[in-house]
Amino acid sequence: MTTQQLEAQIRLKKSFLCIGLDVDLNKIPQHLLATEDPIFEFNKAIIDATHDLCVSYKPNTAFYEAYGIKGWQSLEKTINYINENYPEIFTIADAKRGDIGNTSSMYAKAFFEDLSFDSVTVAPYMGKDSVEPFLAFENKHTIMLALTSNEGAFDFQTLETNGQELYKTVLETSKNWKNSENLMYVVGATKAEYFTEIRKIVPNSFLLVPGVGAQGGSLSEVCKYGMSENVGLLINSSRGIIYASNGTDFAEKAREEALKLQVEMEGILSKK
Amino acid sequence: MTTQQLEAQIRLKKSFLCIGLDVDLNKIPQHLLATEDPIFEFNKAIIDATHDLCVSYKPNTAFYEAYGIKGWQSLEKTINYINENYPEIFTIADAKRGDIGNTSSMYAKAFFEDLSFDSVTVAPYMGKDSVEPFLAFENKHTIMLALTSNEGAFDFQTLETNGQELYKTVLETSKNWKNSENLMYVVGATKAEYFTEIRKIVPNSFLLVPGVGAQGGSLSEVCKYGMSENVGLLINSSRGIIYASNGTDFAEKAREEALKLQVEMEGILSKK
Repeated sequence: MTTQQLEAQIRLKKSFLCIGLDVDLNKIPQHLLATEDPIFEFNKAIIDATHDLCVSYKPNTAFYEAYGIKGWQSLEKTINYINENYPEIFTIADAKRGDIGNTSSMYAKAFFEDLSFDSVTVAPYMGKDSVEPFLAFENKHTIMLALTSNEGAFDFQTLETNGQELYKTVLETSKNWKNSENLMYVVGATKAEYFTEIRKIVPNSFLLVPGVGAQGGSLSEVCKYGMSENVGLLINSSRGIIYASNGTDFAEKAREEALKLQVEMEGILSKK
Repeated sequence: MTTQQLEAQIRLKKSFLCIGLDVDLNKIPQHLLATEDPIFEFNKAIIDATHDLCVSYKPNTAFYEAYGIKGWQSLEKTINYINENYPEIFTIADAKRGDIGNTSSMYAKAFFEDLSFDSVTVAPYMGKDSVEPFLAFENKHTIMLALTSNEGAFDFQTLETNGQELYKTVLETSKNWKNSENLMYVVGATKAEYFTEIRKIVPNSFLLVPGVGAQGGSLSEVCKYGMSENVGLLINSSRGIIYASNGTDFAEKAREEALKLQVEMEGILSKK
Protein backbone atom coordinates (compact mmCIF):
# COMPACT_ATOMS: atom_id res chain seq x y z
CA MET A 1 0.00 0.00 0.00
CA THR A 2 1.26 3.50 -0.79
CA THR A 3 1.24 6.36 1.69
CA GLN A 4 -1.30 8.11 -0.56
CA GLN A 5 -3.64 5.14 -0.38
CA LEU A 6 -3.38 5.15 3.42
CA GLU A 7 -4.14 8.87 3.49
CA ALA A 8 -7.15 8.33 1.22
CA GLN A 9 -8.47 5.66 3.60
CA ILE A 10 -8.12 8.05 6.52
CA ARG A 11 -10.17 10.67 4.69
CA LEU A 12 -12.77 8.13 3.57
CA LYS A 13 -13.25 6.49 6.97
CA LYS A 14 -12.73 9.70 8.98
CA SER A 15 -10.48 7.67 11.19
CA PHE A 16 -6.77 7.20 11.84
CA LEU A 17 -7.31 4.40 14.29
CA CYS A 18 -5.06 1.35 14.44
CA ILE A 19 -6.27 -1.62 16.45
CA GLY A 20 -3.60 -3.71 18.16
CA LEU A 21 -4.30 -7.43 17.94
CA ASP A 22 -2.31 -8.49 21.02
CA VAL A 23 -4.18 -11.66 21.76
CA ASP A 24 -3.62 -13.36 25.09
CA LEU A 25 -5.47 -16.67 25.59
CA ASN A 26 -5.93 -15.80 29.26
CA LYS A 27 -7.89 -12.67 28.39
CA ILE A 28 -10.15 -13.66 25.51
CA PRO A 29 -13.71 -14.93 26.06
CA GLN A 30 -13.42 -18.44 27.40
CA HIS A 31 -16.06 -19.87 25.05
CA LEU A 32 -13.57 -19.37 22.19
CA LEU A 33 -11.12 -21.81 23.74
CA ALA A 34 -13.27 -24.69 22.49
CA THR A 35 -12.63 -23.70 18.86
CA GLU A 36 -9.74 -25.10 16.83
CA ASP A 37 -7.89 -21.79 16.60
CA PRO A 38 -9.11 -19.47 19.38
CA ILE A 39 -6.65 -16.68 18.51
CA PHE A 40 -7.80 -16.54 14.91
CA GLU A 41 -11.48 -16.82 15.82
CA PHE A 42 -11.05 -13.93 18.24
CA ASN A 43 -9.21 -11.80 15.66
CA LYS A 44 -11.72 -12.60 12.92
CA ALA A 45 -14.64 -11.49 15.09
CA ILE A 46 -12.85 -8.30 16.16
CA ILE A 47 -11.88 -7.48 12.56
CA ASP A 48 -15.36 -8.14 11.16
CA ALA A 49 -16.84 -5.90 13.86
CA THR A 50 -14.43 -2.97 13.53
CA HIS A 51 -12.88 -2.83 10.02
CA ASP A 52 -14.97 0.16 8.91
CA LEU A 53 -13.91 2.20 11.95
CA CYS A 54 -10.14 1.79 11.69
CA VAL A 55 -7.55 2.04 8.93
CA SER A 56 -5.02 -0.39 10.36
CA TYR A 57 -4.54 -3.58 12.37
CA LYS A 58 -1.33 -4.27 14.25
CA PRO A 59 -0.70 -7.78 15.56
CA ASN A 60 2.24 -7.81 17.97
CA THR A 61 4.27 -10.86 16.99
CA ALA A 62 5.27 -11.65 20.59
CA PHE A 63 1.74 -12.74 21.40
CA TYR A 64 1.79 -15.23 18.53
CA GLU A 65 5.35 -16.52 19.02
CA ALA A 66 4.50 -17.28 22.63
CA TYR A 67 2.25 -20.08 21.31
CA GLY A 68 4.91 -21.53 19.02
CA ILE A 69 3.94 -23.00 15.67
CA LYS A 70 0.24 -22.80 16.50
CA GLY A 71 0.66 -19.10 17.23
CA TRP A 72 2.54 -18.52 14.00
CA GLN A 73 -0.32 -20.26 12.15
CA SER A 74 -2.85 -17.97 13.84
CA LEU A 75 -0.79 -14.96 12.75
CA GLU A 76 -0.66 -16.20 9.17
CA LYS A 77 -4.40 -16.87 9.10
CA THR A 78 -5.07 -13.42 10.56
CA ILE A 79 -3.00 -11.49 8.03
CA ASN A 80 -4.41 -13.58 5.17
CA TYR A 81 -7.94 -12.96 6.40
CA ILE A 82 -7.38 -9.20 6.44
CA ASN A 83 -5.67 -9.13 3.05
CA GLU A 84 -8.39 -11.22 1.41
CA ASN A 85 -11.43 -9.54 2.93
CA TYR A 86 -10.31 -6.02 3.70
CA PRO A 87 -7.43 -5.18 1.32
CA GLU A 88 -7.91 -1.46 2.07
CA ILE A 89 -6.52 -2.01 5.58
CA PHE A 90 -2.92 -1.00 6.33
CA THR A 91 -1.34 -3.93 8.16
CA ILE A 92 1.50 -3.60 10.67
CA ALA A 93 3.63 -6.47 11.96
CA ASP A 94 4.69 -5.13 15.34
CA ALA A 95 7.88 -7.14 15.53
CA LYS A 96 10.56 -4.61 16.54
CA ARG A 97 13.21 -6.44 14.55
CA GLY A 98 16.72 -5.35 13.58
CA ASP A 99 19.97 -7.17 12.87
CA ILE A 100 23.03 -6.96 10.62
CA GLY A 101 22.28 -6.41 6.94
CA ASN A 102 21.89 -9.92 5.53
CA THR A 103 19.87 -10.94 8.57
CA SER A 104 17.55 -7.93 8.42
CA SER A 105 16.91 -8.91 4.80
CA MET A 106 15.61 -12.25 6.03
CA TYR A 107 13.27 -10.51 8.48
CA ALA A 108 12.05 -8.18 5.73
CA LYS A 109 11.37 -11.19 3.52
CA ALA A 110 9.50 -12.87 6.38
CA PHE A 111 7.12 -9.98 7.02
CA PHE A 112 6.80 -8.30 3.62
CA GLU A 113 6.85 -11.35 1.34
CA ASP A 114 6.01 -14.49 3.28
CA LEU A 115 3.30 -12.84 5.42
CA SER A 116 2.45 -9.90 3.09
CA PHE A 117 2.29 -7.21 5.76
CA ASP A 118 2.31 -3.60 4.55
CA SER A 119 4.73 -2.57 7.28
CA VAL A 120 6.90 -3.80 10.12
CA THR A 121 8.27 -2.11 13.24
CA VAL A 122 12.06 -2.08 13.71
CA ALA A 123 14.52 -1.07 16.44
CA PRO A 124 17.22 1.50 15.63
CA TYR A 125 20.12 0.47 17.91
CA MET A 126 22.14 -1.31 15.20
CA GLY A 127 21.92 1.65 12.82
CA LYS A 128 21.71 2.18 9.10
CA ASP A 129 22.59 -1.22 7.65
CA SER A 130 20.15 -2.91 10.04
CA VAL A 131 17.22 -0.84 8.74
CA GLU A 132 17.98 -0.19 5.06
CA PRO A 133 17.21 -3.78 4.00
CA PHE A 134 13.61 -3.17 5.11
CA LEU A 135 13.48 0.17 3.30
CA ALA A 136 14.40 -1.46 0.00
CA PHE A 137 10.90 -2.92 -0.47
CA GLU A 138 8.68 -0.80 -2.68
CA ASN A 139 5.32 0.27 -1.25
CA LYS A 140 6.22 -1.33 2.06
CA HIS A 141 6.81 0.74 5.19
CA THR A 142 9.30 0.49 8.00
CA ILE A 143 8.16 1.91 11.31
CA MET A 144 11.20 2.64 13.46
CA LEU A 145 11.15 3.10 17.22
CA ALA A 146 11.94 6.71 18.08
CA LEU A 147 10.38 7.57 21.44
CA THR A 148 8.44 4.74 23.03
CA SER A 149 5.66 4.99 25.59
CA ASN A 150 7.12 2.82 28.34
CA GLU A 151 9.01 3.81 31.48
CA GLY A 152 12.31 2.47 30.08
CA ALA A 153 12.11 5.02 27.25
CA PHE A 154 13.90 7.39 29.60
CA ASP A 155 16.86 5.04 30.15
CA PHE A 156 18.50 5.72 26.78
CA GLN A 157 16.14 7.42 24.31
CA THR A 158 16.20 10.76 26.10
CA LEU A 159 19.93 10.82 26.88
CA GLU A 160 21.72 13.89 25.55
CA THR A 161 23.78 13.13 22.42
CA ASN A 162 25.23 15.79 20.10
CA GLY A 163 23.43 18.43 22.15
CA GLN A 164 20.02 16.83 21.75
CA GLU A 165 18.15 13.79 22.97
CA LEU A 166 19.03 10.45 21.39
CA TYR A 167 15.60 9.92 19.86
CA LYS A 168 15.98 13.18 17.95
CA THR A 169 19.36 12.07 16.64
CA VAL A 170 17.75 8.78 15.62
CA LEU A 171 15.05 10.68 13.71
CA GLU A 172 17.51 13.04 12.04
CA THR A 173 20.05 10.40 11.11
CA SER A 174 17.45 8.10 9.60
CA LYS A 175 16.33 10.81 7.19
CA ASN A 176 19.61 10.34 5.31
CA TRP A 177 19.20 6.61 4.80
CA LYS A 178 18.46 5.16 1.39
CA ASN A 179 14.71 5.02 0.63
CA SER A 180 13.99 6.94 3.82
CA GLU A 181 10.65 7.95 2.29
CA ASN A 182 9.52 4.46 3.38
CA LEU A 183 10.12 5.30 7.04
CA MET A 184 7.46 5.92 9.65
CA TYR A 185 8.17 6.24 13.38
CA VAL A 186 6.86 4.94 16.69
CA VAL A 187 6.24 7.85 19.07
CA GLY A 188 4.53 7.18 22.38
CA ALA A 189 1.66 9.37 23.55
CA THR A 190 2.77 9.76 27.15
CA LYS A 191 4.05 13.33 26.70
CA ALA A 192 2.18 15.15 23.97
CA GLU A 193 4.55 18.14 24.08
CA TYR A 194 7.30 15.98 22.59
CA PHE A 195 5.37 15.95 19.31
CA THR A 196 6.14 19.62 18.68
CA GLU A 197 9.86 18.88 18.70
CA ILE A 198 9.42 15.74 16.64
CA ARG A 199 7.42 17.53 13.97
CA LYS A 200 10.30 19.99 13.52
CA ILE A 201 12.47 17.03 12.45
CA VAL A 202 9.93 14.91 10.54
CA PRO A 203 7.12 17.29 9.54
CA ASN A 204 5.34 14.91 7.19
CA SER A 205 6.21 11.37 8.28
CA PHE A 206 3.55 9.06 9.62
CA LEU A 207 3.83 8.48 13.36
CA LEU A 208 2.45 5.32 14.94
CA VAL A 209 1.31 6.34 18.40
CA PRO A 210 0.79 3.77 21.15
CA GLY A 211 -0.13 4.76 24.66
CA VAL A 212 -3.47 6.46 24.08
CA GLY A 213 -6.08 5.08 26.48
CA ALA A 214 -4.78 2.21 28.63
CA GLN A 215 -1.34 3.81 28.94
CA GLY A 216 -2.73 7.24 29.74
CA GLY A 217 -2.12 9.45 26.68
CA SER A 218 -4.75 11.91 25.46
CA LEU A 219 -5.95 11.72 21.86
CA SER A 220 -6.76 15.42 21.55
CA GLU A 221 -3.38 16.46 22.97
CA VAL A 222 -1.49 14.15 20.61
CA CYS A 223 -3.44 15.52 17.63
CA LYS A 224 -2.92 19.10 18.74
CA TYR A 225 0.85 18.75 18.73
CA GLY A 226 1.44 15.82 16.39
CA MET A 227 -0.91 16.10 13.41
CA SER A 228 0.69 16.95 10.09
CA GLU A 229 -0.80 18.52 6.94
CA ASN A 230 -1.97 15.07 5.80
CA VAL A 231 -2.87 13.85 9.30
CA GLY A 232 0.30 11.73 9.55
CA LEU A 233 -0.87 9.87 12.63
CA LEU A 234 -1.92 6.30 13.32
CA ILE A 235 -3.25 6.09 16.85
CA ASN A 236 -3.06 2.59 18.26
CA SER A 237 -5.38 1.14 20.84
CA SER A 238 -5.15 -2.51 21.83
CA ARG A 239 -6.47 -3.61 25.22
CA GLY A 240 -9.03 -0.80 25.49
CA ILE A 241 -10.81 -2.13 22.41
CA ILE A 242 -10.20 -5.86 22.10
CA TYR A 243 -10.79 -6.65 25.79
CA ALA A 244 -13.79 -4.35 26.26
CA SER A 245 -15.76 -7.44 27.24
CA ASN A 246 -14.83 -11.05 27.78
CA GLY A 247 -18.34 -12.33 27.28
CA THR A 248 -20.02 -13.51 24.09
CA ASP A 249 -20.64 -9.84 23.26
CA PHE A 250 -16.87 -9.11 23.01
CA ALA A 251 -16.93 -8.12 19.33
CA GLU A 252 -19.94 -5.84 19.77
CA LYS A 253 -18.32 -4.16 22.79
CA ALA A 254 -15.04 -3.81 20.89
CA ARG A 255 -16.98 -2.03 18.14
CA GLU A 256 -18.48 0.34 20.70
CA GLU A 257 -15.03 1.28 22.00
CA ALA A 258 -13.60 1.65 18.49
CA LEU A 259 -16.58 3.80 17.53
CA LYS A 260 -15.94 6.17 20.45
CA LEU A 261 -12.41 6.75 19.19
CA GLN A 262 -13.51 7.04 15.55
CA VAL A 263 -16.15 9.65 16.48
CA GLU A 264 -13.55 11.62 18.43
CA MET A 265 -11.20 11.40 15.44
CA GLU A 266 -13.94 12.50 13.04
CA GLY A 267 -14.50 15.55 15.23
CA ILE A 268 -10.82 16.40 15.20
CA LEU A 269 -10.54 15.93 11.43
CA SER A 270 -13.61 18.10 10.76
CA LYS A 271 -11.97 21.02 12.60
CA LYS A 272 -8.77 20.70 10.55
CA MET B 1 21.93 -23.99 32.42
CA THR B 2 23.85 -22.05 35.07
CA THR B 3 26.85 -19.85 34.30
CA GLN B 4 28.98 -22.29 36.31
CA GLN B 5 27.86 -25.19 34.14
CA LEU B 6 28.77 -23.23 31.02
CA GLU B 7 32.20 -22.44 32.48
CA ALA B 8 32.72 -26.10 33.32
CA GLN B 9 31.92 -27.05 29.71
CA ILE B 10 34.46 -24.52 28.46
CA ARG B 11 37.16 -26.08 30.65
CA LEU B 12 36.16 -29.62 29.69
CA LYS B 13 36.03 -29.03 25.95
CA LYS B 14 38.89 -26.50 25.90
CA SER B 15 36.66 -24.39 23.72
CA PHE B 16 34.53 -21.28 23.97
CA LEU B 17 33.22 -21.60 20.45
CA CYS B 18 29.62 -20.83 19.52
CA ILE B 19 28.42 -21.97 16.11
CA GLY B 20 25.82 -19.80 14.42
CA LEU B 21 23.11 -21.81 12.69
CA ASP B 22 22.08 -19.16 10.14
CA VAL B 23 20.69 -21.49 7.54
CA ASP B 24 19.96 -20.12 4.10
CA LEU B 25 18.39 -22.58 1.63
CA ASN B 26 20.36 -20.93 -1.18
CA LYS B 27 23.66 -21.77 0.47
CA ILE B 28 23.24 -25.29 1.82
CA PRO B 29 24.24 -28.39 -0.20
CA GLN B 30 21.62 -28.81 -2.88
CA HIS B 31 21.20 -32.56 -2.31
CA LEU B 32 19.52 -31.68 1.02
CA LEU B 33 16.69 -29.88 -0.75
CA ALA B 34 15.17 -33.26 -1.63
CA THR B 35 14.63 -34.05 2.07
CA GLU B 36 11.43 -33.21 3.89
CA ASP B 37 13.07 -30.60 6.14
CA PRO B 38 16.33 -29.43 4.55
CA ILE B 39 17.07 -26.84 7.26
CA PHE B 40 16.77 -29.38 10.04
CA GLU B 41 18.74 -32.03 8.13
CA PHE B 42 21.51 -29.50 7.57
CA ASN B 43 21.56 -28.44 11.23
CA LYS B 44 21.48 -32.03 12.48
CA ALA B 45 24.50 -32.97 10.37
CA ILE B 46 26.42 -29.85 11.44
CA ILE B 47 25.58 -30.44 15.11
CA ASP B 48 26.50 -34.15 15.05
CA ALA B 49 29.82 -33.26 13.41
CA THR B 50 30.82 -30.39 15.70
CA HIS B 51 29.15 -30.73 19.14
CA ASP B 52 32.36 -31.84 20.91
CA LEU B 53 34.28 -28.80 19.60
CA CYS B 54 31.90 -26.05 20.65
CA VAL B 55 29.98 -25.16 23.79
CA SER B 56 27.09 -23.34 22.14
CA TYR B 57 24.81 -23.19 19.11
CA LYS B 58 23.09 -19.99 18.08
CA PRO B 59 20.29 -20.15 15.51
CA ASN B 60 19.40 -16.68 14.27
CA THR B 61 15.61 -16.61 14.25
CA ALA B 62 15.43 -14.43 11.11
CA PHE B 63 16.63 -17.31 8.96
CA TYR B 64 13.79 -19.49 10.22
CA GLU B 65 11.03 -16.88 10.18
CA ALA B 66 11.87 -16.17 6.55
CA TYR B 67 10.41 -19.61 5.75
CA GLY B 68 7.22 -19.07 7.73
CA ILE B 69 5.63 -21.95 9.61
CA LYS B 70 7.97 -24.48 7.98
CA GLY B 71 10.94 -22.45 9.20
CA TRP B 72 9.54 -22.20 12.71
CA GLN B 73 9.10 -26.00 12.68
CA SER B 74 12.75 -26.42 11.63
CA LEU B 75 13.79 -24.17 14.52
CA GLU B 76 11.73 -26.17 16.99
CA LYS B 77 13.13 -29.47 15.71
CA THR B 78 16.67 -28.08 15.90
CA ILE B 79 16.43 -26.88 19.50
CA ASN B 80 14.71 -30.09 20.55
CA TYR B 81 17.41 -32.16 18.84
CA ILE B 82 20.15 -30.30 20.71
CA ASN B 83 18.37 -30.47 24.07
CA GLU B 84 17.66 -34.20 23.73
CA ASN B 85 21.03 -35.31 22.39
CA TYR B 86 23.50 -32.76 23.71
CA PRO B 87 22.01 -31.25 26.87
CA GLU B 88 25.46 -29.92 27.85
CA ILE B 89 25.24 -27.37 25.00
CA PHE B 90 24.38 -23.74 25.83
CA THR B 91 21.70 -22.69 23.37
CA ILE B 92 21.15 -19.12 22.19
CA ALA B 93 18.08 -17.85 20.34
CA ASP B 94 19.55 -14.94 18.40
CA ALA B 95 16.31 -13.02 18.18
CA LYS B 96 17.23 -9.46 19.24
CA ARG B 97 13.80 -8.93 20.78
CA GLY B 98 12.58 -6.15 23.07
CA ASP B 99 9.20 -4.53 23.73
CA ILE B 100 7.15 -3.03 26.56
CA GLY B 101 6.98 -5.14 29.70
CA ASN B 102 3.98 -7.39 29.17
CA THR B 103 5.04 -8.00 25.56
CA SER B 104 8.65 -8.83 26.46
CA SER B 105 7.20 -11.38 28.89
CA MET B 106 5.52 -13.07 25.93
CA TYR B 107 8.83 -13.21 24.03
CA ALA B 108 10.60 -14.60 27.10
CA LYS B 109 7.92 -17.27 27.37
CA ALA B 110 8.34 -18.08 23.66
CA PHE B 111 12.08 -18.64 23.83
CA PHE B 112 12.67 -19.85 27.38
CA GLU B 113 9.56 -21.99 27.90
CA ASP B 114 8.00 -22.92 24.58
CA LEU B 115 11.32 -23.51 22.79
CA SER B 116 13.50 -24.20 25.89
CA PHE B 117 16.48 -22.09 24.86
CA ASP B 118 19.06 -21.30 27.56
CA SER B 119 19.36 -17.71 26.39
CA VAL B 120 18.02 -15.08 24.03
CA THR B 121 19.52 -11.93 22.57
CA VAL B 122 17.68 -8.64 23.21
CA ALA B 123 17.94 -5.02 22.06
CA PRO B 124 18.39 -2.26 24.69
CA TYR B 125 16.67 0.74 23.07
CA MET B 126 13.43 0.46 25.08
CA GLY B 127 15.27 0.26 28.41
CA LYS B 128 14.80 -1.45 31.72
CA ASP B 129 11.20 -2.65 31.60
CA SER B 130 11.75 -4.14 28.14
CA VAL B 131 14.61 -6.35 29.39
CA GLU B 132 13.73 -7.20 32.99
CA PRO B 133 10.93 -9.64 32.01
CA PHE B 134 13.62 -11.79 30.37
CA LEU B 135 15.91 -11.52 33.42
CA ALA B 136 13.20 -12.90 35.68
CA PHE B 137 13.72 -16.47 34.44
CA GLU B 138 15.98 -18.53 36.68
CA ASN B 139 19.00 -20.17 35.05
CA LYS B 140 18.14 -18.48 31.78
CA HIS B 141 20.35 -15.80 30.26
CA THR B 142 19.62 -12.57 28.47
CA ILE B 143 22.28 -11.43 26.02
CA MET B 144 21.86 -7.72 25.40
CA LEU B 145 23.29 -5.83 22.43
CA ALA B 146 26.03 -3.47 23.60
CA LEU B 147 28.47 -2.85 20.74
CA THR B 148 27.64 -4.72 17.55
CA SER B 149 30.02 -5.68 14.76
CA ASN B 150 28.26 -4.00 11.84
CA GLU B 151 28.93 -0.67 10.18
CA GLY B 152 25.73 0.84 11.63
CA ALA B 153 27.10 0.31 15.15
CA PHE B 154 28.72 3.70 14.76
CA ASP B 155 25.43 5.49 14.02
CA PHE B 156 24.19 5.49 17.61
CA GLN B 157 26.10 3.06 19.85
CA THR B 158 29.27 5.16 19.92
CA LEU B 159 27.58 8.56 20.30
CA GLU B 160 28.74 10.50 23.34
CA THR B 161 26.18 10.45 26.18
CA ASN B 162 26.92 11.50 29.76
CA GLY B 163 30.57 11.97 28.79
CA GLN B 164 30.95 8.44 27.44
CA GLU B 165 29.82 6.39 24.48
CA LEU B 166 26.23 5.15 24.49
CA TYR B 167 27.19 1.46 24.60
CA LYS B 168 29.08 2.08 27.83
CA THR B 169 26.06 3.79 29.34
CA VAL B 170 23.97 0.82 28.23
CA LEU B 171 26.38 -1.56 29.98
CA GLU B 172 26.55 0.52 33.15
CA THR B 173 22.83 1.17 33.40
CA SER B 174 21.92 -2.48 32.90
CA LYS B 175 24.03 -3.52 35.89
CA ASN B 176 21.42 -1.92 38.14
CA TRP B 177 18.48 -3.84 36.71
CA LYS B 178 16.77 -6.56 38.71
CA ASN B 179 18.41 -9.97 38.25
CA SER B 180 21.22 -8.38 36.26
CA GLU B 181 23.36 -11.41 37.11
CA ASN B 182 21.44 -13.10 34.27
CA LEU B 183 22.80 -10.60 31.73
CA MET B 184 25.42 -11.29 29.10
CA TYR B 185 26.33 -8.87 26.31
CA VAL B 186 26.89 -8.88 22.56
CA VAL B 187 30.20 -7.19 21.76
CA GLY B 188 31.49 -7.27 18.18
CA ALA B 189 35.08 -8.25 17.43
CA THR B 190 35.80 -5.56 14.90
CA LYS B 191 37.88 -3.41 17.27
CA ALA B 192 39.59 -5.51 19.92
CA GLU B 193 40.78 -2.45 21.87
CA TYR B 194 37.19 -1.72 22.86
CA PHE B 195 37.27 -4.81 25.08
CA THR B 196 39.65 -3.15 27.54
CA GLU B 197 37.10 -0.41 28.21
CA ILE B 198 34.23 -2.86 28.32
CA ARG B 199 35.99 -5.07 30.88
CA LYS B 200 36.33 -2.06 33.19
CA ILE B 201 32.52 -1.89 33.30
CA VAL B 202 31.61 -5.60 33.22
CA PRO B 203 34.74 -7.46 34.40
CA ASN B 204 33.09 -10.86 34.77
CA SER B 205 30.08 -10.95 32.45
CA PHE B 206 29.99 -13.31 29.52
CA LEU B 207 30.41 -11.56 26.18
CA LEU B 208 29.02 -13.10 23.01
CA VAL B 209 31.39 -12.03 20.26
CA PRO B 210 30.35 -12.12 16.60
CA GLY B 211 32.60 -10.85 13.86
CA VAL B 212 35.57 -13.22 14.23
CA GLY B 213 36.48 -14.69 10.85
CA ALA B 214 34.07 -13.72 8.06
CA GLN B 215 33.63 -10.21 9.49
CA GLY B 216 37.37 -9.69 10.03
CA GLY B 217 37.97 -9.80 13.80
CA SER B 218 41.01 -11.59 15.25
CA LEU B 219 40.49 -14.30 17.86
CA SER B 220 43.81 -13.75 19.62
CA GLU B 221 43.27 -10.00 19.85
CA VAL B 222 39.77 -10.40 21.25
CA CYS B 223 41.06 -12.85 23.86
CA LYS B 224 43.99 -10.61 24.76
CA TYR B 225 41.72 -7.70 25.63
CA GLY B 226 38.42 -9.39 26.39
CA MET B 227 39.04 -12.55 28.39
CA SER B 228 37.98 -12.50 32.04
CA GLU B 229 39.15 -14.59 34.99
CA ASN B 230 36.69 -17.34 34.03
CA VAL B 231 37.13 -16.87 30.26
CA GLY B 232 33.83 -14.97 29.94
CA LEU B 233 33.79 -15.18 26.16
CA LEU B 234 31.65 -17.01 23.64
CA ILE B 235 33.15 -16.52 20.19
CA ASN B 236 30.64 -16.99 17.42
CA SER B 237 31.39 -18.19 13.94
CA SER B 238 28.60 -18.87 11.48
CA ARG B 239 29.33 -18.79 7.76
CA GLY B 240 33.03 -19.69 8.13
CA ILE B 241 32.03 -23.03 9.62
CA ILE B 242 28.63 -24.05 8.30
CA TYR B 243 29.31 -23.10 4.69
CA ALA B 244 32.88 -24.46 4.52
CA SER B 245 31.68 -26.73 1.71
CA ASN B 246 28.43 -27.05 -0.15
CA GLY B 247 29.11 -30.60 -1.30
CA THR B 248 28.15 -33.87 0.37
CA ASP B 249 31.20 -33.40 2.64
CA PHE B 250 29.76 -30.22 4.21
CA ALA B 251 29.57 -31.60 7.75
CA GLU B 252 33.11 -32.98 7.61
CA LYS B 253 34.45 -29.66 6.30
CA ALA B 254 32.48 -27.77 8.94
CA ARG B 255 34.17 -29.96 11.56
CA GLU B 256 37.59 -29.11 10.12
CA GLU B 257 36.88 -25.37 10.41
CA ALA B 258 35.46 -25.71 13.91
CA LEU B 259 38.51 -27.79 14.91
CA LYS B 260 40.88 -25.04 13.74
CA LEU B 261 39.14 -22.57 16.03
CA GLN B 262 38.95 -25.05 18.92
CA VAL B 263 42.69 -25.78 18.64
CA GLU B 264 43.45 -22.06 18.64
CA MET B 265 41.22 -21.63 21.69
CA GLU B 266 42.89 -24.56 23.47
CA GLY B 267 46.24 -22.86 22.89
CA ILE B 268 44.97 -19.59 24.32
CA LEU B 269 43.42 -21.30 27.35
CA SER B 270 46.60 -23.28 28.10
CA LYS B 271 48.59 -20.05 28.36
CA LYS B 272 46.11 -18.57 30.82
